[in-house]
Amino acid sequence: MKEVLKNLDKAFENRIRLGIMSALVVNDNLDFNSLKNLLGLTDGNLASHLKTLKKKEYITYKKEFLNRKPNTNYFATNKGIAAFKKHINAIEQLLK
Amino acid sequence: MKEVLKNLDKAFENRIRLGIMSALVVNDNLDFNSLKNLLGLTDGNLASHLKTLKKKEYITYKKEFLNRKPNTNYFATNKGIAAFKKHINAIEQLLK
Repeated sequence: MKEVLKNLDKAFENRIRLGIMSALVVNDNLDFNSLKNLLGLTDGNLASHLKTLKKKEYITYKKEFLNRKPNTNYFATNKGIAAFKKHINAIEQLLK
Repeated sequence: MKEVLKNLDKAFENRIRLGIMSALVVNDNLDFNSLKNLLGLTDGNLASHLKTLKKKEYITYKKEFLNRKPNTNYFATNKGIAAFKKHINAIEQLLK
């Protein structure tokens, strides 16, 4: 069980980050407002957790223009998807 | 997804508390040393997280004597089991 606990990722202990990551693994990509509405967060709260996940290189983003307005799309990286799967597997192991 | 995030229990965000609760849901009861060894924790660290879970009334304990030595057994309460199931269901919902 010790080894399983080590496989739980501290980055996903926070439920908002777990939510962001789930959303970006399930969906191909989501822009800031979609994530905000999906998770029911304030701009500041979402921005702060996105920053943490970007620092870990678990997500990345792409800035585009939609009707001349800047729009930022967020994606899970391969590293992020692998870390997320490892975390979810560890939870499943815990329950065995 | 907002509603699902709300069903994630803050008490189980911490991976050690998630580990303790999993251990007490899967096993009928565990004493302090068994929990400590199972999760690979120090006395202080385990005691601190047990205290948090006791405060939430998610676990309870029973003091006994084993070969004249005091021994404390920990159990998940019905409230704790229900909270844990809700948390795990929310994680499963997130992944859909």
